[in-house]
Amino acid sequence: MSRLDVTEKIIATKVAKGIKWADVAAKVGLSKEWVTAACLGQMTLDKKQADTIGKIFGLSADEKKWLMVVPYKGSLPTSVPTDPLIYRFYELVSVYGTTFKELIHEEFGDGIMSAIDFKMDLKREPNAAGDRVNIVMSGKFLPYKTY
Amino acid sequence: MSRLDVTEKIIATKVAKGIKWADVAAKVGLSKEWVTAACLGQMTLDKKQADTIGKIFGLSADEKKWLMVVPYKGSLPTSVPTDPLIYRFYELVSVYGTTFKELIHEEFGDGIMSAIDFKMDLKREPNAAGDRVNIVMSGKFLPYKTY
Amino acid sequence: MSRLDVTEKIIATKVAKGIKWADVAAKVGLSKEWVTAACLGQMTLDKKQADTIGKIFGLSADEKKWLMVVPYKGSLPTSVPTDPLIYRFYELVSVYGTTFKELIHEEFGDGIMSAIDFKMDLKREPNAAGDRVNIVMSGKFLPYKTY
Amino acid sequence: MSRLDVTEKIIATKVAKGIKWADVAAKVGLSKEWVTAACLGQMTLDKKQADTIGKIFGLSADEKKWLMVVPYKGSLPTSVPTDPLIYRFYELVSVYGTTFKELIHEEFGDGIMSAIDFKMDLKREPNAAGDRVNIVMSGKFLPYKTY
Amino acid sequence: MSRLDVTEKIIATKVAKGIKWADVAAKVGLSKEWVTAACLGQMTLDKKQADTIGKIFGLSADEKKWLMVVPYKGSLPTSVPTDPLIYRFYELVSVYGTTFKELIHEEFGDGIMSAIDFKMDLKREPNAAGDRVNIVMSGKFLPYKTY
Amino acid sequence: MSRLDVTEKIIATKVAKGIKWADVAAKVGLSKEWVTAACLGQMTLDKKQADTIGKIFGLSADEKKWLMVVPYKGSLPTSVPTDPLIYRFYELVSVYGTTFKELIHEEFGDGIMSAIDFKMDLKREPNAAGDRVNIVMSGKFLPYKTY
Amino acid sequence: MSRLDVTEKIIATKVAKGIKWADVAAKVGLSKEWVTAACLGQMTLDKKQADTIGKIFGLSADEKKWLMVVPYKGSLPTSVPTDPLIYRFYELVSVYGTTFKELIHEEFGDGIMSAIDFKMDLKREPNAAGDRVNIVMSGKFLPYKTY
Amino acid sequence: MSRLDVTEKIIATKVAKGIKWADVAAKVGLSKEWVTAACLGQMTLDKKQADTIGKIFGLSADEKKWLMVVPYKGSLPTSVPTDPLIYRFYELVSVYGTTFKELIHEEFGDGIMSAIDFKMDLKREPNAAGDRVNIVMSGKFLPYKTY
Amino acid sequence: MSRLDVTEKIIATKVAKGIKWADVAAKVGLSKEWVTAACLGQMTLDKKQADTIGKIFGLSADEKKWLMVVPYKGSLPTSVPTDPLIYRFYELVSVYGTTFKELIHEEFGDGIMSAIDFKMDLKREPNAAGDRVNIVMSGKFLPYKTY
Amino acid sequence: MSRLDVTEKIIATKVAKGIKWADVAAKVGLSKEWVTAACLGQMTLDKKQADTIGKIFGLSADEKKWLMVVPYKGSLPTSVPTDPLIYRFYELVSVYGTTFKELIHEEFGDGIMSAIDFKMDLKREPNAAGDRVNIVMSGKFLPYKTY
Repeated sequence: MSRLDVTEKIIATKVAKGIKWADVAAKVGLSKEWVTAACLGQMTLDKKQADTIGKIFGLSADEKKWLMVVPYKGSLPTSVPTDPLIYRFYELVSVYGTTFKELIHEEFGDGIMSAIDFKMDLKREPNAAGDRVNIVMSGKFLPYKTY
Repeated sequence: MSRLDVTEKIIATKVAKGIKWADVAAKVGLSKEWVTAACLGQMTLDKKQADTIGKIFGLSADEKKWLMVVPYKGSLPTSVPTDPLIYRFYELVSVYGTTFKELIHEEFGDGIMSAIDFKMDLKREPNAAGDRVNIVMSGKFLPYKTY
Repeated sequence: MSRLDVTEKIIATKVAKGIKWADVAAKVGLSKEWVTAACLGQMTLDKKQADTIGKIFGLSADEKKWLMVVPYKGSLPTSVPTDPLIYRFYELVSVYGTTFKELIHEEFGDGIMSAIDFKMDLKREPNAAGDRVNIVMSGKFLPYKTY
Repeated sequence: MSRLDVTEKIIATKVAKGIKWADVAAKVGLSKEWVTAACLGQMTLDKKQADTIGKIFGLSADEKKWLMVVPYKGSLPTSVPTDPLIYRFYELVSVYGTTFKELIHEEFGDGIMSAIDFKMDLKREPNAAGDRVNIVMSGKFLPYKTY
Repeated sequence: MSRLDVTEKIIATKVAKGIKWADVAAKVGLSKEWVTAACLGQMTLDKKQADTIGKIFGLSADEKKWLMVVPYKGSLPTSVPTDPLIYRFYELVSVYGTTFKELIHEEFGDGIMSAIDFKMDLKREPNAAGDRVNIVMSGKFLPYKTY
Repeated sequence: MSRLDVTEKIIATKVAKGIKWADVAAKVGLSKEWVTAACLGQMTLDKKQADTIGKIFGLSADEKKWLMVVPYKGSLPTSVPTDPLIYRFYELVSVYGTTFKELIHEEFGDGIMSAIDFKMDLKREPNAAGDRVNIVMSGKFLPYKTY
Repeated sequence: MSRLDVTEKIIATKVAKGIKWADVAAKVGLSKEWVTAACLGQMTLDKKQADTIGKIFGLSADEKKWLMVVPYKGSLPTSVPTDPLIYRFYELVSVYGTTFKELIHEEFGDGIMSAIDFKMDLKREPNAAGDRVNIVMSGKFLPYKTY
Repeated sequence: MSRLDVTEKIIATKVAKGIKWADVAAKVGLSKEWVTAACLGQMTLDKKQADTIGKIFGLSADEKKWLMVVPYKGSLPTSVPTDPLIYRFYELVSVYGTTFKELIHEEFGDGIMSAIDFKMDLKREPNAAGDRVNIVMSGKFLPYKTY
Repeated sequence: MSRLDVTEKIIATKVAKGIKWADVAAKVGLSKEWVTAACLGQMTLDKKQADTIGKIFGLSADEKKWLMVVPYKGSLPTSVPTDPLIYRFYELVSVYGTTFKELIHEEFGDGIMSAIDFKMDLKREPNAAGDRVNIVMSGKFLPYKTY
Repeated sequence: MSRLDVTEKIIATKVAKGIKWADVAAKVGLSKEWVTAACLGQMTLDKKQADTIGKIFGLSADEKKWLMVVPYKGSLPTSVPTDPLIYRFYELVSVYGTTFKELIHEEFGDGIMSAIDFKMDLKREPNAAGDRVNIVMSGKFLPYKTY
């Protein structure tokens, strides 16, 4: 058994039972973004969170233990994603990558936006010309320092 | 001469004169995100915008014409970026890629968030534990349709 | 169980029973292009479509549920396809890629042809010198906008 | 001097003089698709065509000779294109590749659609919900034969 | 079951029974080149051919059906082959690729040698200094045409 | 100066003067296949051959010396060739690679067809249904031996 | 002019004048690790540091400005380094990568060792069996948090 | 059975039983760094070490034998690691690679730091601004010699 | 069943029974280099050799037949090997590749050292400063010839 | 100026003057293997060696300094070499890689053959059936140790 097996069981159960990520998140008491990432094998749960997830998806004791182990992260099968929805995010990095770099450095100096001390919120933005996906990302700025 | 030559001249002039992207954007009258991307060779300017940019960076008539030509987009030299700041965005796609996919499909059904009908706003988010980079992305949802 | 398992079952059943895609499409009441792509794991079906497909290919209730889940798209095992028929399409992108770009921009300005709001029709074009494959593609033009 | 130098001169002249591909094609007396591909270094011109192109773009005698040499084809700098417009065509091959294969084989048997005995026509398709890019491709079917 | 399963069964049976490709070809009544490629999953058989192959290798009715389905072609596990015998052919393409191109264009103009309307014959060429492999390839020339 | 510079000068001179490979070969007194490969930087010439080539293409004494140096071989810019004519040869290796392997081993046992002790002849094969490219390859069989 | 040009000038000057990194660092008043990385185009200098470096390497005013611009980081030409000294570090990541992961997670929980809030010290470790390279790395632990 | 099977069993048992690497190392009587690497399939154990490990993880006699076989090393599934913790080490090699090279050569001359005659110690470094990961690496310097 | 299955069985049996390659080679009556390569799936055995190997490793009649089939060669899972021992050989090719080329051409003219008509002998070379690995390679020189 | 420039000057001078590596080595007083590698930019020379090389190839004072700088090693333009002579060595690593590993471990235990404390001798081995290339490699065995 591995974390991947548990992830696949969670996904298969979700499809079979018609579970929604938003409902899972509500039961865990955290954001849908973090909870979904955790269920997809990208985050680590504590005992109480694992018990909640285990109950929802019918996991065994051993399967729940895997949820509490730090996973080997990276959710995509290829370095350039083939799925159109995910590719669009890759394209944003490709097209706007140097823009992110210029503007963050102009505002903060040398350093990065943390992808660890990071959170995000994804929601529907109603719009007469067609609703939009709205994503707010917030990551701590980490400066390079001299030493 | 090519668009790349013009981009390199803009960057070199920016360094030599100490120009700020925010000031360039203010003169163009558009967001700093779009204007920076345009100056970095990722967007297409109209005549008036090109004239403004041309004046700021001392471009020739021919160089300004290149700003009005649609560029071959993609700002990064490798498919997996080596620069730490840009890599963190790639890492977000890698770690959260399947999460983006699940949550957008759960909310909207099959389709994508457009990377074309898209805008974003990047700003400083003051925080006692260290200021944060705040990015708001807004892209039109485009549904797959049957036919 | 995963969407891939369902796709493989559909294909194996098609071979074993000698089913034709055109007939499947007729029963679903949509184009053969969309229906074939859906059966091959690239599109998402609604309940009624899934029931029709399920009946044709003898799918279980759980297998039909997978047809209604948005799949991870991308149908090819390598980034440059090895199959000669599919490679010819890749070659068209390689040889005519910059031509597509120049002509669409000349006609429409900066933007793309959507691969989401897209449909196509593939048919036999009789010709004395040897019949031809005729493909009509229609994709919405999506303009980049300033912001 | 190489064909690439001539291609770059043609493109630079086009930008400097504001030449349109459609006008070039009209002077050559062939489709805009073929003429643009030829100017971009993907097709071979005969003497008369090269003279016409040479006059439009101010090419020297030697430069015109390069237009009559069969070029090393392939117009893209990376095997997976980074430019969003061109990527969408790559995505169509990725998502619909197996569909192309199934439907052409169902209609014609084993073989391919030629990318050599091939022509296409790209035009604007007016549409109230936003104009569309319409592309008609026609390639001879070439059957595999036993021997 | 898939075509790959059938190919693997054919190969395993060939090893177990000590069958020779030349004998298989003689029974099918076609060249050893085409028949071997077909048995290795690269060509499509008709009913009669599949029956003959099925009898030789003890295939079931369903397995024979897979022989009549157009396979996803490409017989090698990596884009640069590691097997020394196959690599030598890759090396010929690498070393002589531009020579093939120059000489075919010099003789025929712009176009290609078809890999579809193609046949070949591989035989032993006796030679006092060590026998040689003799391969005769014949592919239809397909010219690019203007349009 | 490098061998590549000499190759480029030869090609540029060929285009400018309209020289034919067949004529070059006739003057060297060897096959057009070997002579073309040599001029394209893949083979090594002796003094007399270099003098002949030097005269035809107007090479300096130093440039002729480079023709007598063993070149770093491999004539293609990418491991999977993008040029359609050359790709077809790559495709033959991909589709028929395992067939080459099976048939040569069946006839000769374990070993390879040499790509060094190798020669080939490429010619037009008249055919009512369209002329064909005919290539005869002859490479010494080199057996693996036990030791 | 670009940062790369400045880096190359610094290196060429270092070779021509026989400058030592340790001496450069002493003049800048920081560690040799940080100062060397900065001179090699991986870190950003402030005005005073740039003036010191500029004096040592004879840089112009514009060249010094480039030292104060945040560079596009990543110092290696290939994703797997070919240089033996650098490869050994890559090998340590390859062999010990999962060990780093297990031990840091066992000690700290889910998170990473920062490569930004990071410093290191490289020195000679005398040893009778042959002196050793001793490297002390210190990076802040950054925990993933739930949200 | 293979070494990979044994590694996976060790990891699964560790998760199921909540074993800590530090405790395993204490029982083996060696550093946690070496012991963890060995359990993860990167080092070779002697009989006594294998017996200790076998007892802790409930391995069979055959499984213990695999621990004494030199493994095929390299612990990561991709050449550029996707896991954020491990990527940071890759990033250090990318950003500081040329710095390692310059400073080791300045101190020792041409040669490398051995990745074989190597040891390391990873520990928590308490810090008021957030604890740090402290890694001390020690590798023998191996000089290139003339011959 | 495939050759890979037989190779894996041989390796597993070797580990389980503690067999040494040198002893296997002695029983086969050939060098340990050739015999090990053959057991690892890189060479082809004759009937008598396969019987000897079969007896040592307890192979079935069918498994022995696979040893007599020419294998698809190439023993490594990645094009740049990750295992440190094997990587050192790759590094020798990388560092000394052009040196091999220059010196062999200086001595023999244009051609190659055969990797087919090749043998080698690997042994311990006692040395007070630490024993050394001594490898003698002998490959027939194969000259390129004009034709 | 860079080490690459010096290497290219050495090679161009060698071709122009017809210098032999063996003669260069004799003047330096070291093996032709080491001296050739050094001239090709893979090894570091001391003052006296650089003076000798500088005299032979007419190098300036600055160029000689570059010979005394440790180069960024790796002499090949692609990770899988295209040149047939060099490829054969790559093929030996590919085919015999696991054999090297098994036999060195069987003789020495876990560790590697050093590619740093390494020397080799390449010479002609006369043979009635065609002369052979004989290469003797000697590298120190470096054992992995527990810690």
